[in-house]
Amino acid sequence: MKIKKAVITAAGRNQTKVPLQVLVDSDGESKSAIRIILEEAFASGVEEACIIVSPGDEEIYRTAAGQVPGKLSFIPQADPRGYGHALLIAQEFVGPHSFLHFVSDHLYISNLENRCAQQLVAIAEAEACSVSAVQPTREGMLPYYGAIGGTRLHHQQNLYTIERVLEKPTPTEAEQSLIVPGLRAGHYLCFFGMHVLSAGVMEILRRHLGELPPGQMLHLAPALAELARKEKYLACEISGRRYNLGVKFGLLNAQIALGLAGNDREELLAQLVELLATRHADHKP
Amino acid sequence: MKIKKAVITAAGRNQTKVPLQVLVDSDGESKSAIRIILEEAFASGVEEACIIVSPGDEEIYRTAAGQVPGKLSFIPQADPRGYGHALLIAQEFVGPHSFLHFVSDHLYISNLENRCAQQLVAIAEAEACSVSAVQPTREGMLPYYGAIGGTRLHHQQNLYTIERVLEKPTPTEAEQSLIVPGLRAGHYLCFFGMHVLSAGVMEILRRHLGELPPGQMLHLAPALAELARKEKYLACEISGRRYNLGVKFGLLNAQIALGLAGNDREELLAQLVELLATRHADHKP
Repeated sequence: MKIKKAVITAAGRNQTKVPLQVLVDSDGESKSAIRIILEEAFASGVEEACIIVSPGDEEIYRTAAGQVPGKLSFIPQADPRGYGHALLIAQEFVGPHSFLHFVSDHLYISNLENRCAQQLVAIAEAEACSVSAVQPTREGMLPYYGAIGGTRLHHQQNLYTIERVLEKPTPTEAEQSLIVPGLRAGHYLCFFGMHVLSAGVMEILRRHLGELPPGQMLHLAPALAELARKEKYLACEISGRRYNLGVKFGLLNAQIALGLAGNDREELLAQLVELLATRHADHKP
Repeated sequence: MKIKKAVITAAGRNQTKVPLQVLVDSDGESKSAIRIILEEAFASGVEEACIIVSPGDEEIYRTAAGQVPGKLSFIPQADPRGYGHALLIAQEFVGPHSFLHFVSDHLYISNLENRCAQQLVAIAEAEACSVSAVQPTREGMLPYYGAIGGTRLHHQQNLYTIERVLEKPTPTEAEQSLIVPGLRAGHYLCFFGMHVLSAGVMEILRRHLGELPPGQMLHLAPALAELARKEKYLACEISGRRYNLGVKFGLLNAQIALGLAGNDREELLAQLVELLATRHADHKP
């Protein structure tokens, strides 16, 4: 199994602006968030990427993406019927093959030489199955993420079987069905925003769409829950961190993390210290 | 003298993206930089603002600006002939009156209850003349700013007569003609990116444009230098700081400064400390 294609969803309400925001990447260059995400995708070895956008956003995204080391295409989501629907739009693009999937409002910073997507793709190719990247996440952050319940499979690689998938669970729901033995108390395995999924998920989404009452949104989490019942589907703790750009101060946190992970580490620390000192002196309590 | 109109220049090469970047303002709300700048302008008491944009950018700017408490219009700069030319395009808009002028890639954080633009307009109205806001700036930052030479006029209000104006002077030029007695060694009075200018500057710019060799840019600094020779023209140290969004890590610095100046101060400090601790632990030297 070789992963050749990546699908990035960027048609969500918040996603029309966030991926166009400019950050200084860890290599010191100013880039749009979508460009950083595309570099992450292509670094994993995929040859083609497709971005699902709101109709009319193609050009602004193409400009923000710049030159990328692979084929890039856009599919507009004319009828916004939810995250699952946005992904389903790429069914023809991915065909019968497993594919890499990212949301467009997260950035990833690896703790290893290999980038996060590269780590994930390597595991999916070795296990020859769908794998979702997850990160142990504080209970307080559950309103922002999908979360899984499961059992640790392979300690070395931080692999888990996925038994349940819930989107933005309440703390009670999480406590009842998502506790994973071995994690720190009050922590759950939440999605990292990065998955390798088999084409089977597209079949499930297509069926769910057919059964969907008019006006309802097509969500991804129920399709992933069904995928876990039908196929081998693992979760994997990546050695790295995700930064959700869409939350308050999300861009700021991502920028500092990128800066501290890169060549500008010393310069950035000096600037932070100077700024904290100055603004502390100016502050009138 | 009452300042009723503001002119914001946003047609420069870097300025097409920077003012559209989103920051969490000191009131805790996520806003585009151009919206924060417009709020600064209207808070000073002006009734109308006009943004000079690259042709075609009107709509994206109107969306990014949102609802503002006053009249907002756009003028496209069809023929990009420099900063002075961009300002001159607003000659008809300002008419025979003095006006407030900002660049669009800076943010301002006041140390007082009154915002920076409000401080500047109050001084210009009291002195009934053109006033440019300035900030003592390290020699190393001279490549980013216009700078003035002059003499301190009024200690209490940090007012200076302007005798010379140079755009992005070299350290040698600055040392030869821009030293202002009373400033810290190695510091110069650099523009803050915020001015109240009389309509006289438009007349000067129009004449300079007529004399301009083809293909040359029309700069503002020579027009300001001429204004200083012809009219009463002061510089004023505002109680606050400017943040240049267009430099490397400029957005980051502005975001931290905004956060530390506002309601989210404690939350932001906690996040910074957590992030620094985490990324320090993860860092592989």
